[in-house]
Amino acid sequence: MKKMIYAFTEGKGQGKELLGGKGANLAEMTSLNLPVPQGFTITTECCMNYLADEQFFENELKTEILKAVKTLEQETAKSFTASTNLLLVSVRSGAAFSMPGMMDTILNLGLNDERVQVFAKVTNLAFAYDCYRRLLQMYGDVVYGIPKDKFNQQLTAQEKKLSKTAIDFNQDEHIEVIKSYQDIYRNHHVSFPQDPIEQLFEATQAVFKSWLNPRADVYRKLNDIPDNLGTAVNIQAMVFGNSGDKSGTGVVFTRNPSTGEKQLFGEFLLNAQGEDVVAGIRTPLPIDALAEQLPEAYQAFVQYAEQLEQYYLDMQDIEFTIEQGRLFILQTRNGKRTAKAAVQIVLDLVSEGMISKEEALLRITPSLIEQLIHPVFETQALKETPILAEGLPASPGAATGTIVFTAEKAKGLANQGINVILVRQETSPEDIEGMIVSEAIVTSRGGMTSHAAVVARGMGTCCVAGCEALIVNEDLKEIQCGDITLTEGDILSVDGSSGRLYVGELPTVFEENNQSLQQLLTWADEVAHLKVRGNAETPQELAIALDFGATGIGLARTEHMFFGEERLLEMRRLILSQDDNEIETALSRLLQFQQADFYQMFKIIQDKPMVVRLLDPPMHEFLPHSPGEIKSLSQQLKRHPEEVAQHIAHLQETNPMLGHRGCRLGITQPLIYQMQVTALFNSVLQLSQEGIIIQPEIMIPLISEKAELLEIKTFLTATIDQIFETHQIDPIPYELGTMIELPRACLIADQLANEADFFSFGTNDLTQMTYGFSRDDIGKFITSYQEKHIMTSDPFQTLDQEGVGQLIKLAVKKARSIKPDLTIGVCGEVGGDPHSINFFHQIGIDYVSCSAYRIPAARLAVAQASLFNK
Amino acid sequence: MKKMIYAFTEGKGQGKELLGGKGANLAEMTSLNLPVPQGFTITTECCMNYLADEQFFENELKTEILKAVKTLEQETAKSFTASTNLLLVSVRSGAAFSMPGMMDTILNLGLNDERVQVFAKVTNLAFAYDCYRRLLQMYGDVVYGIPKDKFNQQLTAQEKKLSKTAIDFNQDEHIEVIKSYQDIYRNHHVSFPQDPIEQLFEATQAVFKSWLNPRADVYRKLNDIPDNLGTAVNIQAMVFGNSGDKSGTGVVFTRNPSTGEKQLFGEFLLNAQGEDVVAGIRTPLPIDALAEQLPEAYQAFVQYAEQLEQYYLDMQDIEFTIEQGRLFILQTRNGKRTAKAAVQIVLDLVSEGMISKEEALLRITPSLIEQLIHPVFETQALKETPILAEGLPASPGAATGTIVFTAEKAKGLANQGINVILVRQETSPEDIEGMIVSEAIVTSRGGMTSHAAVVARGMGTCCVAGCEALIVNEDLKEIQCGDITLTEGDILSVDGSSGRLYVGELPTVFEENNQSLQQLLTWADEVAHLKVRGNAETPQELAIALDFGATGIGLARTEHMFFGEERLLEMRRLILSQDDNEIETALSRLLQFQQADFYQMFKIIQDKPMVVRLLDPPMHEFLPHSPGEIKSLSQQLKRHPEEVAQHIAHLQETNPMLGHRGCRLGITQPLIYQMQVTALFNSVLQLSQEGIIIQPEIMIPLISEKAELLEIKTFLTATIDQIFETHQIDPIPYELGTMIELPRACLIADQLANEADFFSFGTNDLTQMTYGFSRDDIGKFITSYQEKHIMTSDPFQTLDQEGVGQLIKLAVKKARSIKPDLTIGVCGEVGGDPHSINFFHQIGIDYVSCSAYRIPAARLAVAQASLFNK
Repeated sequence: MKKMIYAFTEGKGQGKELLGGKGANLAEMTSLNLPVPQGFTITTECCMNYLADEQFFENELKTEILKAVKTLEQETAKSFTASTNLLLVSVRSGAAFSMPGMMDTILNLGLNDERVQVFAKVTNLAFAYDCYRRLLQMYGDVVYGIPKDKFNQQLTAQEKKLSKTAIDFNQDEHIEVIKSYQDIYRNHHVSFPQDPIEQLFEATQAVFKSWLNPRADVYRKLNDIPDNLGTAVNIQAMVFGNSGDKSGTGVVFTRNPSTGEKQLFGEFLLNAQGEDVVAGIRTPLPIDALAEQLPEAYQAFVQYAEQLEQYYLDMQDIEFTIEQGRLFILQTRNGKRTAKAAVQIVLDLVSEGMISKEEALLRITPSLIEQLIHPVFETQALKETPILAEGLPASPGAATGTIVFTAEKAKGLANQGINVILVRQETSPEDIEGMIVSEAIVTSRGGMTSHAAVVARGMGTCCVAGCEALIVNEDLKEIQCGDITLTEGDILSVDGSSGRLYVGELPTVFEENNQSLQQLLTWADEVAHLKVRGNAETPQELAIALDFGATGIGLARTEHMFFGEERLLEMRRLILSQDDNEIETALSRLLQFQQADFYQMFKIIQDKPMVVRLLDPPMHEFLPHSPGEIKSLSQQLKRHPEEVAQHIAHLQETNPMLGHRGCRLGITQPLIYQMQVTALFNSVLQLSQEGIIIQPEIMIPLISEKAELLEIKTFLTATIDQIFETHQIDPIPYELGTMIELPRACLIADQLANEADFFSFGTNDLTQMTYGFSRDDIGKFITSYQEKHIMTSDPFQTLDQEGVGQLIKLAVKKARSIKPDLTIGVCGEVGGDPHSINFFHQIGIDYVSCSAYRIPAARLAVAQASLFNK
Repeated sequence: MKKMIYAFTEGKGQGKELLGGKGANLAEMTSLNLPVPQGFTITTECCMNYLADEQFFENELKTEILKAVKTLEQETAKSFTASTNLLLVSVRSGAAFSMPGMMDTILNLGLNDERVQVFAKVTNLAFAYDCYRRLLQMYGDVVYGIPKDKFNQQLTAQEKKLSKTAIDFNQDEHIEVIKSYQDIYRNHHVSFPQDPIEQLFEATQAVFKSWLNPRADVYRKLNDIPDNLGTAVNIQAMVFGNSGDKSGTGVVFTRNPSTGEKQLFGEFLLNAQGEDVVAGIRTPLPIDALAEQLPEAYQAFVQYAEQLEQYYLDMQDIEFTIEQGRLFILQTRNGKRTAKAAVQIVLDLVSEGMISKEEALLRITPSLIEQLIHPVFETQALKETPILAEGLPASPGAATGTIVFTAEKAKGLANQGINVILVRQETSPEDIEGMIVSEAIVTSRGGMTSHAAVVARGMGTCCVAGCEALIVNEDLKEIQCGDITLTEGDILSVDGSSGRLYVGELPTVFEENNQSLQQLLTWADEVAHLKVRGNAETPQELAIALDFGATGIGLARTEHMFFGEERLLEMRRLILSQDDNEIETALSRLLQFQQADFYQMFKIIQDKPMVVRLLDPPMHEFLPHSPGEIKSLSQQLKRHPEEVAQHIAHLQETNPMLGHRGCRLGITQPLIYQMQVTALFNSVLQLSQEGIIIQPEIMIPLISEKAELLEIKTFLTATIDQIFETHQIDPIPYELGTMIELPRACLIADQLANEADFFSFGTNDLTQMTYGFSRDDIGKFITSYQEKHIMTSDPFQTLDQEGVGQLIKLAVKKARSIKPDLTIGVCGEVGGDPHSINFFHQIGIDYVSCSAYRIPAARLAVAQASLFNK
């Protein structure tokens, strides 16, 4: 038989599989000669043996526990059973992985009706009985499943009866409460064992059994934790910070968790227990004050803190207790910190020579960087405010403002300096100006890659999309959410990072982008293999992307060049044209606009690469739908409204996402792509006269057949040659590439590679088609899917490696078999997702491209991918 | 240098790559000792040599041609250059593949101003000059590119001037026309060579060059014919059926091409040329009459016909000419025939011991069988009637009737015994009763797998779908098609096999399903490996599918169980339910209906397998959309119309095809699937009491994640176990399988195979998602794609092997790696497509399933697949 129990002094190096995380940690601290309260750990193997056969406890484990208790009594020079020199213990579960849902802690084990009186003398009456009551309550809950409430009710009744709080009870009054607690046990046909050893046996078995409880079971399933690991049980001597003026307790961070500054940061209370600090009845003192009050303990603490940082090579969050002048370290762990502190600390650790730059890069979770770029709500306010509803966290940040339902209203109020939140069923390109002026955007429909989400991320505006719980009535200007009705003018707070909405105003904090972050990202760029580009389409967005460190633009959509009042009219004229004259008029006007757009864009981007995608959305997105709009358009086109309405109805599609869009439009209406390419090259020629040399990269969307690509290449090449000829200049080098965004494009990637100068994976569409659900409609069932754990992550946010990833990998392999040097990027939403980036690194993608505000996190993630795969 | 020219007597076995199809055929007939007019073939190699270097003709080929002409003169005992005993020749191109677009034929080469006079004496004046005029015209066209019209204009002018037709011209008048023809040459700065040898040289070179003409080039690209094959040139002595009363010409089939009966079938004219037969000025006589008129020639012909059938082992279509009592066979080829004759002939050939059963099966094109099941329009009527518009040939057959625009009107008129054609933008399940009574269905939107198309094929009703040229105004009850307006009551003829519409009534013929077909299909079943099942969902359809020889049902949709006035109300109640009461009411009523449906279906299908697919379409298909319908529904549900309207609006989806449907609905609303499965098992129990044992196969649609399948399996298994328990019976074996219809399902087919009892590929959805276009919306661009040859076939009709096929193959491989014996079927539209079936055979599919009326063709196709891959 293997060793069943390890004293903390023996456990070092046994590993957390055997001792559990907590047991291993306690053994480790003990081995560092830290003053840890002594104790022992019963192994996870014992747990599994017990669960397989309960007789194991009786036949084998009991003897070992008794031996371990004896040793503990000797080491502490206290007794677990006698009525003097009391040894009390805590019993804690501890699996290899931290696992909520299992039994957690029973404190003060060893108290009984008699020993509590002794205990009251060493500490104080109220505290001793409070400890005993808590033991009875916790023990009843854990060992016998008696609801905790029952006990609280008894105490409350007694307090009410005596018209005073428990702290002022005399001994008899305390004893009366204890009896009433023990009556509760009897009502459940059990009794609280007076024998401490009996208590320990029962508590240990209860911890073992808690491994199987349903909540723990669900948690394991969700996190792929095997069922056969079991939990260890940690038995540790209690120490008491409330045993006099030379006692106390505190929690200290070795560095400032808000700023990262290197200074002890924390607080303590004299003559108190840990929960007194938490309860907030007494005001704790800053840790520095301990230097005056208990200088020896303080000096010892400073030294241990230093030692722990050196050992764990990270900022520590340390719990300590001082019992009659003697310092005990109860727990240490890597301290939680703000994003700002996290970055500062790793930079400091590097300059202190404690960790390498690579380690620094690996220490920061990329998603943390969002907090350095966007405001967040104050933690406390979030805790105190009820959540109105929860949608998809479509664009990070936090904002508060007045609800409006239309883009016009948004503009109107914003002009008056009022912060507005635009709430709509879904947004469309016509809302763009209203979206620009809004603090946040909320939609009741659509997914992470809906129009609202994509545009908001591009602008860095906070957005919650697809919040299905909201019934938005744009006509009545009213939101129904359960029983709550909100109307225009009500104040709403929007957390784009969590997807949550709150009624009323919540305070925000904004940890500003700082030099430390720049430093870290510079290191990141040094080790990264994957390049990071930005998705941007306006001069403003381009500039922001470059500011955030984009090495180029991976996706410059051209849709925006067709929107805006004047342009839209021309686009509509084109779509509804009845003769060549109208077509020519519309195209020549659009050409003027777009040439100016391209000029501005290329002027900003200069010699960096920029992939310009030709028009992609379905025709009908450009068309008016309400009778009023149709009437006004008819007037502008000098046509009969009914005829225009019929024309528009004829263009309507059942599934626009699967319809007449992308290269399909390019093929049926080649004049549009020809106009776009002419505008682009005209602007390039214009810039070349200013000495700025541009090498355009043009991307054709939605290709599913080689013949589609060939057809478009043929007429675009002819158009471009014609331009060179007209201007009598030497050909400018350019590239014609294609977006890989349909499953079929992946499957024939070798054929496409033959014809394309570059590839870029459009993972949004690819995910839609591979799963067969649209980002606009997923909201109807995704909640149910998440509740039932059918989908654990949103494949529009994090690449579905199993399915979509398999297609991408196949496509890269096929393409590279034809053109080993083909440049391949990813410009879908997951291109900016840190979890997906490692996969892209592994399959040999050249660059990822994401919206501007996600670039810093992506720069870190690509560096980490390089380090992971070193 | 290789041999450049082969006399017909030398060519046997040289192959059509070298001699072209026609040259090889002529050599073959010659080798059979048939009386073929003599001649020689210039090889395709000469063509390629000439096209590479024109000097080749001068330096090498000329000498060879002169030699060949000399030999021909000797063999025919005629002279090509002298003015007696005239040898005239035809010059014909002939590539390895029959190739429209190249130069075809020049007849009567060798005539000139002098020889024509000699020729007139042997034949007659008008004929001789007609031949000469034709030579001048054809030669001008082919060799010099002079438009043919110019010549016709001259002849017409002369006829007008002389007020008589050319047949009555005297010699001078003929000569005058010839001169005017030669003037045309001069106007083009060329002249017609009087030297026959010169004519032959120029004509040969012109044929060579025609290989490169643009039409031929396009044809080769379209049909993947390599550019480097070249064409051969055939030079053959002319024979003249118009050289007296013992001369003549005719065309004869060796068997009746309409019925297949074994009897010579054809006609002839004495003292005539082939074109006289075609021109129809004189009435030809049936071939039997030749026995009396020219018994020797007739006897010889009968013998040659027999010989040719024995040689080619098929019914022959033979052209012959008799020149002064001497029979010449000009051409023989396998004769075209009706579907009925095709089947009869192969059966006869088998019983005559000429071909094997396997060969018989391979001889019949599966699509031909459609004609034995559906009526078609008379060929002559089709030729004479202008096409109104062309849509997709969605369901074969031909029908004529009165246009109606609503299902109600259709029912009304049909009840009065009037044949109706239902014309709609698109159909929906609510139209079903109107569709049943219609002779044909026409839609202006939707593809080959749209609702109209699928339902029509299921019912065997003729249908043209997605006829975009029609602007259907259902309110005005009016169709606009270009300048033509049709209204209710107008007569329309619909050809579902070609997709064409005609105004007015066209006569139909119907070659009835016959015993011969049954015989052929019985042979087919004997060799087939793939099984053929039917897609059917009503008792009527099930019975038809079994009648047509289905081995089971591969897809029994359950959608129809939710439609029909009473059921629809309950389904709507369910979807819009506000409390559990409503849900229970709706479900218990639906259960009653569906149990009865399943009972009827299983009773028909008995012990054959039937895969029942649980509900698939999106919710909103069940909901009313017009204000009137919503109002009436609100009254039935006792709710406020506005509230119902809002609820319906909330359920609306942007892309229903990518929305809340299939298993997604099953997961969010498990009660629906539970009700369906309960109804199914209740009916099975009912039948088991009647001694009929059913082993249900239940199929879950639209799975993209293993967890989806598990979730549904879990609650369905529980439901089924509960039923067994309630009825206190032993469990009945059943299978739970899944549809593979999303790209992701293919990619994780190994995971799904672990959980599924069977697979069935839903190729309609799989094609939609792989290409990223929906069958409903493809109409907007597919015409343009076909015009530009970007897509040569519709992937919803014929499997896209490159893309979709690659996914299917991958899925089969993955699935079989887990479960080698997993039953895998294909139940999408391409399951019934003969072109796709061979692929399914090769990748190891177990069965294909298609709509009832396609089963016979599929049975033949699966047999052919077995034979192809033997």
